[in-house]
Amino acid sequence: MSDILERLDTALADRRHADPESSYVASLHNKGLNKILEKVGEEAFETVLAAKDADAKDPATQQALIAETADLWFHSLVMLSHLGLDHRQVLDELARRFGISGHDEKAARQQEDS
Amino acid sequence: MSDILERLDTALADRRHADPESSYVASLHNKGLNKILEKVGEEAFETVLAAKDADAKDPATQQALIAETADLWFHSLVMLSHLGLDHRQVLDELARRFGISGHDEKAARQQEDS
Amino acid sequence: MSDILERLDTALADRRHADPESSYVASLHNKGLNKILEKVGEEAFETVLAAKDADAKDPATQQALIAETADLWFHSLVMLSHLGLDHRQVLDELARRFGISGHDEKAARQQEDS
Amino acid sequence: MSDILERLDTALADRRHADPESSYVASLHNKGLNKILEKVGEEAFETVLAAKDADAKDPATQQALIAETADLWFHSLVMLSHLGLDHRQVLDELARRFGISGHDEKAARQQEDS
Repeated sequence: MSDILERLDTALADRRHADPESSYVASLHNKGLNKILEKVGEEAFETVLAAKDADAKDPATQQALIAETADLWFHSLVMLSHLGLDHRQVLDELARRFGISGHDEKAARQQEDS
Repeated sequence: MSDILERLDTALADRRHADPESSYVASLHNKGLNKILEKVGEEAFETVLAAKDADAKDPATQQALIAETADLWFHSLVMLSHLGLDHRQVLDELARRFGISGHDEKAARQQEDS
Repeated sequence: MSDILERLDTALADRRHADPESSYVASLHNKGLNKILEKVGEEAFETVLAAKDADAKDPATQQALIAETADLWFHSLVMLSHLGLDHRQVLDELARRFGISGHDEKAARQQEDS
Repeated sequence: MSDILERLDTALADRRHADPESSYVASLHNKGLNKILEKVGEEAFETVLAAKDADAKDPATQQALIAETADLWFHSLVMLSHLGLDHRQVLDELARRFGISGHDEKAARQQEDS
């Protein structure tokens, strides 16, 4: 599960320099930062609207919220990529705030493996 | 790295029912969905403003963008938790769209390990 | 100048029930509240981005901000109209907060005129 | 009714250079453009949430939407003022798009009066 963001970042990096005609990611980078940020903003509002409409008894509304949240995270990953950053710094920041060290964890795991 | 979101979801679930006086997460749930969504919205605008101010030559502006993106993801995780959902469905949705199957990947890894 | 909002509200009311194929306003009402609110949200982000890019020495960037703010106000007028409200209540609320009474003002003016 | 925006702009201009300790408007200008834009963004989300909760049978929810829309317009007026612009350009732009000329109207009215 946890490698999905890693693999997504790799896919985003690969597609960044693809043909804008055939790749949505390349077309976003090609249109520039403002266009990417407009998409982050649109998806933020669509997420909030989907959350207002989400109903535990109606799986379709819950799936709609998942889809909008995925759009929001996806476009924020494209934003980070456009500015030379990636999801690792964001997860590190979250880990730091919650007293969960990503790097320590990795070090601990490598030690276990050896 | 990849387990940070898992551990964050566990921490969010633990804190959901804590004392709202001492836990920010509990206080958000206590104030209800609209308050959580207002925070998602605020952080979306703060992320976009930080991205406009981000400058590759000024690490402080890049760290500010990382911090705002962390706030945005964090509050969207609280939103999912409030509605009985979590980050796994979002990553699954992203994996599905990008032809990266989280579950298949796990299955493949388990096979490799055996 | 001041009657523009009045006349705009009249135009919005007229077009609400027009053919959605030929009227943008009718097409928005036809698509429903969520679509109208998505547009309010999009225009809010586009306004903020245009404000960040606005430069007193470059009239084109200032005109772009005016155009985005007009889009934001326009879509919020459509939202009010969709919910049976209009700009008068909003201006009354602003007048009340600033100690400027719209109705009193009108009454005072009518008295002056008589 | 129509002069409320005029008088509001005058009030905003007066308060811009007031003591930030005693004037909210002065404190916003003092904190700078990003703070003003964050407020525009917050109010945009609060407006959208209030619109989702607005119910024709419950006047309190409709008044809440009016109050949030007033906040949104108010902070966008502060934004325009911060950048040397005002509501007139926005209304002119709306008039132009809808084939309602504010200036022509004024000219016509002056002619009628003479």
